[in-house]
Amino acid sequence: MAKTTASNSSAPYVVIIAGGKGERFWPQSRTARPKHLLPVVGQTPLLAQTLERVKGIVPAKNTFVITSAVQAREVAKVCRGLIPAANIVAEPVGRDTAAAVGLAAALVGARDPNGVFAVLPADHVIHDIKAYQIDLRAAFAAAGAADVMVTIGIPPNEPATGFGYIQRGEEWGRVGAGKTARTVFAVKRFVEKPKLELAEAYLKSGDYVWNAGMFVWSVPVVEAAFAAYAPELDAGLKKIRVALRKKSPLAAVLKRVYPTLVRISVDYALLEKSTNVVMLPASFDWDDVGAWPAVAKHFKADAAGNVARGEVIVEQGRGNLVFGEGGHLVTLLGVDDLVVVHTADATLVMPKARAQDIKALLAKVGLRKDAAKRL
Amino acid sequence: MAKTTASNSSAPYVVIIAGGKGERFWPQSRTARPKHLLPVVGQTPLLAQTLERVKGIVPAKNTFVITSAVQAREVAKVCRGLIPAANIVAEPVGRDTAAAVGLAAALVGARDPNGVFAVLPADHVIHDIKAYQIDLRAAFAAAGAADVMVTIGIPPNEPATGFGYIQRGEEWGRVGAGKTARTVFAVKRFVEKPKLELAEAYLKSGDYVWNAGMFVWSVPVVEAAFAAYAPELDAGLKKIRVALRKKSPLAAVLKRVYPTLVRISVDYALLEKSTNVVMLPASFDWDDVGAWPAVAKHFKADAAGNVARGEVIVEQGRGNLVFGEGGHLVTLLGVDDLVVVHTADATLVMPKARAQDIKALLAKVGLRKDAAKRL
Repeated sequence: MAKTTASNSSAPYVVIIAGGKGERFWPQSRTARPKHLLPVVGQTPLLAQTLERVKGIVPAKNTFVITSAVQAREVAKVCRGLIPAANIVAEPVGRDTAAAVGLAAALVGARDPNGVFAVLPADHVIHDIKAYQIDLRAAFAAAGAADVMVTIGIPPNEPATGFGYIQRGEEWGRVGAGKTARTVFAVKRFVEKPKLELAEAYLKSGDYVWNAGMFVWSVPVVEAAFAAYAPELDAGLKKIRVALRKKSPLAAVLKRVYPTLVRISVDYALLEKSTNVVMLPASFDWDDVGAWPAVAKHFKADAAGNVARGEVIVEQGRGNLVFGEGGHLVTLLGVDDLVVVHTADATLVMPKARAQDIKALLAKVGLRKDAAKRL
Repeated sequence: MAKTTASNSSAPYVVIIAGGKGERFWPQSRTARPKHLLPVVGQTPLLAQTLERVKGIVPAKNTFVITSAVQAREVAKVCRGLIPAANIVAEPVGRDTAAAVGLAAALVGARDPNGVFAVLPADHVIHDIKAYQIDLRAAFAAAGAADVMVTIGIPPNEPATGFGYIQRGEEWGRVGAGKTARTVFAVKRFVEKPKLELAEAYLKSGDYVWNAGMFVWSVPVVEAAFAAYAPELDAGLKKIRVALRKKSPLAAVLKRVYPTLVRISVDYALLEKSTNVVMLPASFDWDDVGAWPAVAKHFKADAAGNVARGEVIVEQGRGNLVFGEGGHLVTLLGVDDLVVVHTADATLVMPKARAQDIKALLAKVGLRKDAAKRL
């Protein structure tokens, strides 16, 4: 647990990456209103829930949201009263997660060159906030105590093929004390989304966790990794760092620099190459709610297994997920295991089992003259 | 073909019975807007199509529409410009078809005590207007030439179990000349909706036609039948006849008399008992479009057998019937043989095969606080 540069004296930072295309929850989600801007589960948008979860650990002024230009307006609405408006930064174009993490490090570094910060996705569902906060505090402690990249891994409960996995190594150390103590492990390797048999083997071994895109580290550690493993990207990011240090208008420099940055994920660019990655297994529940059918398990179903929100009647049907909106009455008769979502301007009807194919449908929507307002 | 009372010199009359509860085409149809007020098939409401079909045979001033109080407003809208407003008569309460036929006879009788008139349903779909008009003219000729009750029977093309059947007897006579000549048959008996095996036997025999509720007769013939077979009902109807002869306000007398009339169908009350019923087999196409799935065959389907109206996308689905409304986009992914109907305030999703069970769903809608505006 050697420590060279990072400070553990000041309050930590959180940078929430609020991106996403808004495809899998169409028609509720749209390009300008993706999953994290919707109350897919719960009463508020998932982004607001994410902000609420880190409250108490990280001061509002230390909490940033990085989003896209097209979503900036809606993101600002959701963040109102939760974090300062100046802490919302819009990427002029999408450049994958490595660029976003570089931007995050620049934002935090301008405030505290040794700052410790978490990068968190905006659109996950976590109910056990207490366990979440203990884990996050432990990750901050680890990243403040040593020059490591801490990933929070999710112990798998099924052989999912939609996530990358992280294979853990030896115990790296313990952080925290008493009931809130957490064990952190070294990381053997990152593996990509596996086929089912491999996923089953990972699950059985007990050595693998899901890579949920939650990272905690210090500014110097991240910057050193960019310099070492992604020098080209680092050169671009440097311009952003300089602009922030000079207090130049950020939007202008992002507009100039961002389109020149290489598109690459932070996993590929840094984590898979770094030798100082450690993993803290999450003790909280976690769901990335990947598509409509995943929503159902977060709601109480009726006796026939139907989950309904809004004005809904299901007659002689089982296992349906039905979302209405705005007083419109959605009725199902004699159908099973369907997803039916009604919004003000569009309705979707599909079997739960076909939710992964929604892109094929949206491709057709995209061919319409009015695609811009439908997608 | 003996003739005693009716006159064949004056123009005939048509009385269209525009009743119906609006259940089977919910959510497009409602109590106040049943099937005949909707363009279920075609561009105009079925009632308007019915009025258009009799134009050229019967003058507009001789065409009446009997409807219910709750539908009167919408019926008046549809009839505007097609028939005089005074020819629309609203029953204050529904009393089945015998009472409506008695009212029809009273309305025609007040204009022409020997008038010949047709009673026609408002909500059937008929494409071959030329054949329809030839048949209707022939029926008028038969009813003008003899004291008979002419039913227009529909030669069955399938062993339907949802209609009553009429068994024909010997040839009664020929009406019309040349290409427009039609054979009229005596009627052996009326039979109720049969079980499937019986319906199959009827179809095979060639002796049976469907009872489509289309009757042509003269005022004296109808009045004589009421007097002979339904004297109680006749006593009530007499008050209506007297009021019409005296030109008393019709609405007031209907309000007083109608609730006292017995509920019975004209088939039970008169036709099954009368000995002077004859049948003219229709030479036109006919469909009563009994429920949503029946609509599909009147529209051009796409290559996958989907029929769509409005803004609809079906991706990887077959045999669906999808009705949108008002620019709302209805999308289906990976589903087959569904009926999906979207209206401004309600959406229905059901398999085509379950269309007959819609009443069970509507019973649930009826339990809602806002049932009045939903049904």
